[in-house]
Amino acid sequence: MKKMNVAIIGDKFMGKAHSNAWKQAGYFFDLPIQPVLKVACGRNAEQLKEFAQRWGWEEVETDWRKVVGRKDIDIVDVSTPTYLHHDIVIAAAKAGKHIYCEKPTAVSYQEAKEMYQAVKAAKGKHYINFNYRRCPAIQLAKRLIDEGKLGRIYHWRGAYLQSWIMDPAFPLTWHLRKETAGAGPQYDLGSHNVDLARFLVGEVKSVMAMTAHFITERPLPDESVARTFQAGSKGTEKGKVGVEDAAFMTLEFENGALGAVESTRFAGGRKNYNYFEVYGSKGSILFDMERMNELEYFSMEDPDYAQGFRTILATEPVHAYVANWWPPGHAIGYEHEHVHAVVDFLKAVDSDKEMTPNLYDGMKVMQVLDAGLESARTGKKVALKDME
Amino acid sequence: MKKMNVAIIGDKFMGKAHSNAWKQAGYFFDLPIQPVLKVACGRNAEQLKEFAQRWGWEEVETDWRKVVGRKDIDIVDVSTPTYLHHDIVIAAAKAGKHIYCEKPTAVSYQEAKEMYQAVKAAKGKHYINFNYRRCPAIQLAKRLIDEGKLGRIYHWRGAYLQSWIMDPAFPLTWHLRKETAGAGPQYDLGSHNVDLARFLVGEVKSVMAMTAHFITERPLPDESVARTFQAGSKGTEKGKVGVEDAAFMTLEFENGALGAVESTRFAGGRKNYNYFEVYGSKGSILFDMERMNELEYFSMEDPDYAQGFRTILATEPVHAYVANWWPPGHAIGYEHEHVHAVVDFLKAVDSDKEMTPNLYDGMKVMQVLDAGLESARTGKKVALKDME
Amino acid sequence: MKKMNVAIIGDKFMGKAHSNAWKQAGYFFDLPIQPVLKVACGRNAEQLKEFAQRWGWEEVETDWRKVVGRKDIDIVDVSTPTYLHHDIVIAAAKAGKHIYCEKPTAVSYQEAKEMYQAVKAAKGKHYINFNYRRCPAIQLAKRLIDEGKLGRIYHWRGAYLQSWIMDPAFPLTWHLRKETAGAGPQYDLGSHNVDLARFLVGEVKSVMAMTAHFITERPLPDESVARTFQAGSKGTEKGKVGVEDAAFMTLEFENGALGAVESTRFAGGRKNYNYFEVYGSKGSILFDMERMNELEYFSMEDPDYAQGFRTILATEPVHAYVANWWPPGHAIGYEHEHVHAVVDFLKAVDSDKEMTPNLYDGMKVMQVLDAGLESARTGKKVALKDME
Amino acid sequence: MKKMNVAIIGDKFMGKAHSNAWKQAGYFFDLPIQPVLKVACGRNAEQLKEFAQRWGWEEVETDWRKVVGRKDIDIVDVSTPTYLHHDIVIAAAKAGKHIYCEKPTAVSYQEAKEMYQAVKAAKGKHYINFNYRRCPAIQLAKRLIDEGKLGRIYHWRGAYLQSWIMDPAFPLTWHLRKETAGAGPQYDLGSHNVDLARFLVGEVKSVMAMTAHFITERPLPDESVARTFQAGSKGTEKGKVGVEDAAFMTLEFENGALGAVESTRFAGGRKNYNYFEVYGSKGSILFDMERMNELEYFSMEDPDYAQGFRTILATEPVHAYVANWWPPGHAIGYEHEHVHAVVDFLKAVDSDKEMTPNLYDGMKVMQVLDAGLESARTGKKVALKDME
Repeated sequence: MKKMNVAIIGDKFMGKAHSNAWKQAGYFFDLPIQPVLKVACGRNAEQLKEFAQRWGWEEVETDWRKVVGRKDIDIVDVSTPTYLHHDIVIAAAKAGKHIYCEKPTAVSYQEAKEMYQAVKAAKGKHYINFNYRRCPAIQLAKRLIDEGKLGRIYHWRGAYLQSWIMDPAFPLTWHLRKETAGAGPQYDLGSHNVDLARFLVGEVKSVMAMTAHFITERPLPDESVARTFQAGSKGTEKGKVGVEDAAFMTLEFENGALGAVESTRFAGGRKNYNYFEVYGSKGSILFDMERMNELEYFSMEDPDYAQGFRTILATEPVHAYVANWWPPGHAIGYEHEHVHAVVDFLKAVDSDKEMTPNLYDGMKVMQVLDAGLESARTGKKVALKDME
Repeated sequence: MKKMNVAIIGDKFMGKAHSNAWKQAGYFFDLPIQPVLKVACGRNAEQLKEFAQRWGWEEVETDWRKVVGRKDIDIVDVSTPTYLHHDIVIAAAKAGKHIYCEKPTAVSYQEAKEMYQAVKAAKGKHYINFNYRRCPAIQLAKRLIDEGKLGRIYHWRGAYLQSWIMDPAFPLTWHLRKETAGAGPQYDLGSHNVDLARFLVGEVKSVMAMTAHFITERPLPDESVARTFQAGSKGTEKGKVGVEDAAFMTLEFENGALGAVESTRFAGGRKNYNYFEVYGSKGSILFDMERMNELEYFSMEDPDYAQGFRTILATEPVHAYVANWWPPGHAIGYEHEHVHAVVDFLKAVDSDKEMTPNLYDGMKVMQVLDAGLESARTGKKVALKDME
Repeated sequence: MKKMNVAIIGDKFMGKAHSNAWKQAGYFFDLPIQPVLKVACGRNAEQLKEFAQRWGWEEVETDWRKVVGRKDIDIVDVSTPTYLHHDIVIAAAKAGKHIYCEKPTAVSYQEAKEMYQAVKAAKGKHYINFNYRRCPAIQLAKRLIDEGKLGRIYHWRGAYLQSWIMDPAFPLTWHLRKETAGAGPQYDLGSHNVDLARFLVGEVKSVMAMTAHFITERPLPDESVARTFQAGSKGTEKGKVGVEDAAFMTLEFENGALGAVESTRFAGGRKNYNYFEVYGSKGSILFDMERMNELEYFSMEDPDYAQGFRTILATEPVHAYVANWWPPGHAIGYEHEHVHAVVDFLKAVDSDKEMTPNLYDGMKVMQVLDAGLESARTGKKVALKDME
Repeated sequence: MKKMNVAIIGDKFMGKAHSNAWKQAGYFFDLPIQPVLKVACGRNAEQLKEFAQRWGWEEVETDWRKVVGRKDIDIVDVSTPTYLHHDIVIAAAKAGKHIYCEKPTAVSYQEAKEMYQAVKAAKGKHYINFNYRRCPAIQLAKRLIDEGKLGRIYHWRGAYLQSWIMDPAFPLTWHLRKETAGAGPQYDLGSHNVDLARFLVGEVKSVMAMTAHFITERPLPDESVARTFQAGSKGTEKGKVGVEDAAFMTLEFENGALGAVESTRFAGGRKNYNYFEVYGSKGSILFDMERMNELEYFSMEDPDYAQGFRTILATEPVHAYVANWWPPGHAIGYEHEHVHAVVDFLKAVDSDKEMTPNLYDGMKVMQVLDAGLESARTGKKVALKDME
């Protein structure tokens, strides 16, 4: 089988999720290309070494520029904090690599545009990891919409709610600084939700938004703690939170649909609640990532006395990707979406076809998100065409 | 027992709901005042007669001014289409009546202000029928918040979704004309949701909103059909829809909370989905009127390994109003909220205390709603203080 | 309109539920006969008087024999504790009355047989109040089954779970004595569930059962406390619990289906959980009385990628009884089932047709329940034909 | 790190699930022993070779006796159809191997006893793969019970419902023959549910049961089709189904609790519905394997106005195994339970401690199941002590 060498940049949460995906893909799916876990890149040499050993990355390297510059690397997997995406992606594009890039795309729409220009001018394939698209239940949502089962779309009611920083003692990690994250939940969470809105409903025309800042100072983090979601702080020193804590947007779509995307990290009880409702003239669908194996579907074409939201357990062989895993009713989990992305990415690379979502989508999502931030700043509706 | 004579104006859906409430209240609750169903008022003499006979209204009258002018009437129950509220309420206030008024308050904030001025200057008690406040599960929500169980409130995520006019053949009833309804779901549905937001979170500071118009023309209605929700049309002649089909708002509250209120009549599968989520620093609550006997509550003070949204069946004797009905687990329905309102209204009248929500609340809700409509029109954030 | 005089015997929980039903029926439905609330009968003269006054019963009487013997009484409503049903029903049958009898039928299958013999020989109509049959969602279940939407029935999984006597301090009310109640949850709860099994699946052929006795002694009750579900005890004196605390049955149906009916008063968190699942070759349905406005329905005839349990909100005009109440999504409650029963009973009386369920059904249910108790006693499967 | 050689016998559904577990364990957990995938054993040489290649098993072998006899094998993983477990386990025990055995234990209680005798006399560790015990939500159930949060246990309401053979055209695979499977859902599904009942409630004292046979003949299978759940048939020839289609049991536990275990393959809409409810004097829990990341918990110690079943998303770092996977709210799937079992098995082997559940548990479960089958055959209650 054809082989390709992969370099991963980033050895934290996403480094782990991606490493697992590169590993697992071949066990469950027939791949056209065998990915070779060639080199892992991270800043902390000790942590990096342990990471590489655990996941079987053959080599380690602490300078991402060297990694991107290597002739023997075919695929660059960008799993770093957001602020590094821009430079790495552009360098990798220029070096002719295939690019597998974590979201959010960049720390601004401007950066994302530059990234897209770079990959457009290059020959490698590029993918932006809006992994939720590859959840079987969301693939089913797409199928129902594409088949016309929802008719004309009237509404997108999206929300991505979490609660992991509600404790004021949670430290000022890179996610909470403007220079490293670009924005708060508007980027981190909203990017996923807006991507799904574009995937399922279509392009956005204009937005209005409000943001909130609940906790303005936080203790500085103890950088020696590796895990994002259990981060410790190193003392009493505090720094200013540079990003919003919540952002609520309303959206007009090109096709006339009216929507909402509400992102917050201050929704107690919500852990990874990436949620949406789509309402159309013939039917409706609901999805909650915390119950990721399920899709709710209401059909106005059912008999009038027997209409209701049906909870479809998207674990049948007819559902996307499922036949390669387990029998009906045997749930898959979060990581499987990453595996599916790797499978499709390798197929796209092999067949020289565009992969979606790619950095074009990544750029368009950033445009919506930055329009929202501008609206929150100015108190005015922002039309996307005025941003180009 | 003290008796008071009630006059009802309006003999359709709300006339029925209110008549039942005046009847039922005394069977299940100990009332300080016995309401006497004195006179029913409606426009269609034949329908009115049948209505009065069924519900035991002693007399009928087709001119509301005569009813309001009667000396023997103590309480005026305003159950008409919205556009009549203004004149009836002001006349009833001037005549010294106690006023029990259906929502939405009026066809504009301006009218609502005038109504409030009138009742403020009068001696009668006044109530605006945001009946959902008197759902036991919502009373429980209020209790949890008042006890501090939610801590500082961060978010209101409200929605009121219905689907009864999705069929383009649904006729142009009074609900769909600007002159009779004032607005579409922004008023009809949003008024309930905004009332609950004010009840549970507090005053609104500013809003942004977008509206949508999906179906712009509809067949003219057959006025001889009494029932709103099964209205028939009389032919092929069409008229222009004068109100929005959907309105999505974001809200800043005085206390810093960030919120949303989404109202639409184009959400297939949603029948009477008056829904909200409240997130605070210590806990969260969720409510769905389609499961009106339940409240979901998440406490961040539960042990870390045993936290979760609990579905409280608000049918225990400790829950508001419930001890007067049935044993635990025996659901009550929509109409019971109206009964509770009548009970509390008669108590307020008897004890000469203010009833809430009253026409002040009705006015404040209209202010928020009109601010939303203005924002949708201008594309700008609207501060409520700029409207006074 | 034709009028008929009603006498009610029993002034506690069921007296209240039935009184309300006699009152409400005419407001929402067009009745062929107007029920006149003639006389109320109870043992405690003071409580009875207050009860009659509240509900508008014209007269009171403490001796049920006198009531049954009155010429002017057309309908006898038997709302007493179970042990009195036998004598009252037989006397009422002999006196030619129409009989509206609360469940469970009697304190033994033997008694129930005698009651059925008596009504069969008499001319009056008779009804046994398995009220849940008249829940719109259960009527929908029946419709789906009758239309063949479930195909051949394989399973009934029934349960009726409550928790109101879990506190060992709950007193020894009549429900917990063999002489007054006949049995525990096997009768009180199981009777409802078995009635629904017969209604939806068919006749039972044989049963096996186990019972449990968790709390064997309880404080004696304070008889002056009227309310069953908040009963107080009068001191430290205790008496022996005479009935089972839980009964779990398995059942073979005549049509080959295999079933279960599990009844207990020791299921914390379950308040009025009258629950069933029916599985057939083409579809399945689920029902939970705590969400009585909903029915879940799974159709194996939906497309293979879009099958799921749909939650049907049985509040549409097409659903049984609903058009007479409120618009879609506006829930009805427990008491409405009693109203529906009164409506249908008066129609049956007026048209001289059999009402179902009647005392034949009451008898058949008792046969199943007693077969279960015998099985629990003997450790053997009991065939119903061996009991006749 | 210490290494041990693993031999797997069986290359179908369970061969895949186990292979994945042996692979994945080391990536996410720190193992005391590194498992080496030494040899895979299966009957069809071609399929076996493909299987071994995919999963990285170093060698292949079609004779299980040779595998068990190899000196270099430390661990024998028995993933075959049930009827082979007995001979393989006894041979592996005699050869001093550590045994990792799929469920159900054997084709009879008698066989299971012999297997347990063999492992008891041997030095190797042994594990029976009731994998659901290692679902984090079920570990949480165990924790709550062990901490006394449920108090005295009153009830186990268990069910394991599937639907994969409802189509009469589904062929007569080994699962449907008595000689290869021993029994139908009573063994396949009931074994899991009874294991959880023993794990969470305690030992069973006596049982009653009924079984049903809905489809008595089926087409013979096409043995060349590898996948159980999408099996094809080879033509029109039919054979007799040798096992029950459904088995409904009631159970008395040693501690006085009353329970039920209902197993069927004829419950449309249920895919892998391994379900239970546990009711105790202080609280209740509910679990559904189709929502395996959730546990519902009702505490009678919550304030009386705020009690309800809470849906605990068992994806927090404090929940068993979770800290090694993903952040809160990021679901794990079915296969993860197998990974957890491998981790704990290797720890038990390394520390020379008993692993649970083991073949003693496997035997005890078989005793309950065979008691159920005997009860269904004889129509009598069967006490477990009479079976020893």
